[in-house]
Amino acid sequence: MTKPARSVEFTLLHEDSGGGDARRGRLTTPHGAVQTPAFMPVGTLGAIKGLTVDQVASTGSEMVLANTYHLSLRPGEAVVKELGGLHRFMGWDGPILTDSGGFQIFSLASRAKVTEEGCEFRSHIDGSLLNLTPERAVAIQEMLGGDIAMVLDHVIALPAEENSVRDACDRSVRWAERCQAAATRSDQSLFAIVQGGLDGSLRRQCAEQLTKLDFAGYAIGGLSVGEDPEDMYEAIEQTCPALPRDRPRYLMGVGRPQDLLQAIRRGVDLFDCVMPTRNGRNALAFTDGGPLRLRNAVHRLDARPLDSSCPCLACRHSRGYLRHLFQSDEMLGPILLSHHNLTYYQRLLAAARKAIEEDRFEPFCHDRMAGWESSAGDD
Amino acid sequence: MTKPARSVEFTLLHEDSGGGDARRGRLTTPHGAVQTPAFMPVGTLGAIKGLTVDQVASTGSEMVLANTYHLSLRPGEAVVKELGGLHRFMGWDGPILTDSGGFQIFSLASRAKVTEEGCEFRSHIDGSLLNLTPERAVAIQEMLGGDIAMVLDHVIALPAEENSVRDACDRSVRWAERCQAAATRSDQSLFAIVQGGLDGSLRRQCAEQLTKLDFAGYAIGGLSVGEDPEDMYEAIEQTCPALPRDRPRYLMGVGRPQDLLQAIRRGVDLFDCVMPTRNGRNALAFTDGGPLRLRNAVHRLDARPLDSSCPCLACRHSRGYLRHLFQSDEMLGPILLSHHNLTYYQRLLAAARKAIEEDRFEPFCHDRMAGWESSAGDD
Repeated sequence: MTKPARSVEFTLLHEDSGGGDARRGRLTTPHGAVQTPAFMPVGTLGAIKGLTVDQVASTGSEMVLANTYHLSLRPGEAVVKELGGLHRFMGWDGPILTDSGGFQIFSLASRAKVTEEGCEFRSHIDGSLLNLTPERAVAIQEMLGGDIAMVLDHVIALPAEENSVRDACDRSVRWAERCQAAATRSDQSLFAIVQGGLDGSLRRQCAEQLTKLDFAGYAIGGLSVGEDPEDMYEAIEQTCPALPRDRPRYLMGVGRPQDLLQAIRRGVDLFDCVMPTRNGRNALAFTDGGPLRLRNAVHRLDARPLDSSCPCLACRHSRGYLRHLFQSDEMLGPILLSHHNLTYYQRLLAAARKAIEEDRFEPFCHDRMAGWESSAGDD
Repeated sequence: MTKPARSVEFTLLHEDSGGGDARRGRLTTPHGAVQTPAFMPVGTLGAIKGLTVDQVASTGSEMVLANTYHLSLRPGEAVVKELGGLHRFMGWDGPILTDSGGFQIFSLASRAKVTEEGCEFRSHIDGSLLNLTPERAVAIQEMLGGDIAMVLDHVIALPAEENSVRDACDRSVRWAERCQAAATRSDQSLFAIVQGGLDGSLRRQCAEQLTKLDFAGYAIGGLSVGEDPEDMYEAIEQTCPALPRDRPRYLMGVGRPQDLLQAIRRGVDLFDCVMPTRNGRNALAFTDGGPLRLRNAVHRLDARPLDSSCPCLACRHSRGYLRHLFQSDEMLGPILLSHHNLTYYQRLLAAARKAIEEDRFEPFCHDRMAGWESSAGDD
């Protein structure tokens, strides 16, 4: 019996030979290909906050993420389905990944109660009682219709007792298997999520168990929840070698530019994070010299753009104008800085991909880190 | 002695022969030409709220307005000048008109006190005591550097006693003369503002006095301040014939689509209003069948665009998606509807210009009015 072809395939194009584990790949989906390492802007409610889909595409973004938890509450997956599925709903014709809602249930919802069956929680909007099982998480995501769906995982706060971490980790594996059994769409592929907290041995065990289940891709979940960055890097380093070389590796919800490079060095292919857009809305701009806070008075009469080499919409204006927009609460400030920061992330990833192709990711990484630590920024 | 060439010139291209006073013209400025009748989006603080300058241009807008009162408070005209003037500051390379601040002083500032010299008022932001004279209004606008500057006028609330209207009207003429004497920039032209409330005789007198002063253009001010639309139309009808045929006529701060057409019938060439953007931010979309309120539940599952013939960014999406954006407080809702409404206004004006060229403005006007009154909208 031949295995059915997956709707999402990963091709490992090159491994950097310069010392680290950085990889260059290509992820093909029913809605086009994504060059990896790749960063996905977050479109929580079916919109990347403040930007039109054309503007998102113009940052160099190839795939976006949408949140199942949020969309199932508003407008509801049935509405999204009725309006043609997520791609048509958002007007984004490229690849879309939906998360499972697991992370939001544990971070946003109140009084989440986990049983082996699934979890019960209250909506953060109106307090209504809801529940999510692995089967339901898949069903919702199939109605949303993203190219990649995520299994429901049991996320816990860190630090936690070993027993709790192991328990959540084992449950996540059982839930992943139930998700796999529940999936029916041939045009959607499922990624598993490795849990295990900061315990390297648990992370490896979880990765190995999930690998046996043969998923289209593997995520590293439950990180960037308040732990020290070095601990996070260590957990990534423990996990990646236990994952199959020919499948994409996705670090969920991370992170700062330096976190992306540190994770790429350790073999991660895919990222998502609200940081570029959220920080942009809060007047923080990423630059090679470190972050700039546009509300600072020092920018008042500054005629320079944030970055004279940046092709984004914000960099057609002076820092003084951008500061004025934030000081005056003009929507255009958050819009322009969201576009700048996403462009910054995508240019960083494009440069990282090129460095990997040329086997110089380690020196590239070192140089970028040095720039961010130079404090040319005003953060 | 030959008169110095004006930096802003109006060419009357055609007068509709179908019964009304609609005119087709062209306004040339140091930053390009504007086809009239024309509508200017309002960029109060040097930004059309929620839209990038490219998006504003893509609506068909050729000239924008910025508010002197607001910009002189934040960031201050010196900052705008230091950052290269309004065009560079905003990144808008087309024509810009700045108002004089007169209207805002009487509508926004508190405790405005008028003397012959000028007016004293308190900032609506921090309550600081400020004053504005005709000379200072010109000086600020010269620092801002728009293509067209407006004289400082004395605006009063309507209805008002005849004596107060006449007094404010006479003062506005004297102030206009002082503004003219104070103007120094050869690349900026000054428009006068006709006052006179709803008194046709005062309006005509004011128009005649200002006409003798020979301005580059003439505005009709002090309307749309709460009076009945029919009274406003009547005031316009009284004023226009008293203005020189070869100069542009600008109706300040007006208005609804029907107001624009009623004013064009009476010979107005130029408009500005916050309505398309402000209403867009509040989930109201203009359509040929009347306004649609996107928060209404009726749009929840509606897969149709607002208008299938509209090329705007909103009309690539379903009404259901637009409703979802507003229900979820996503910035993209206000952004998309601002773009739609400005596009609606600009397409309306483009159609009006074509109708005038073809001497069918009266039937065009009648048809459009009938559509808006058909209540196909849900307002």
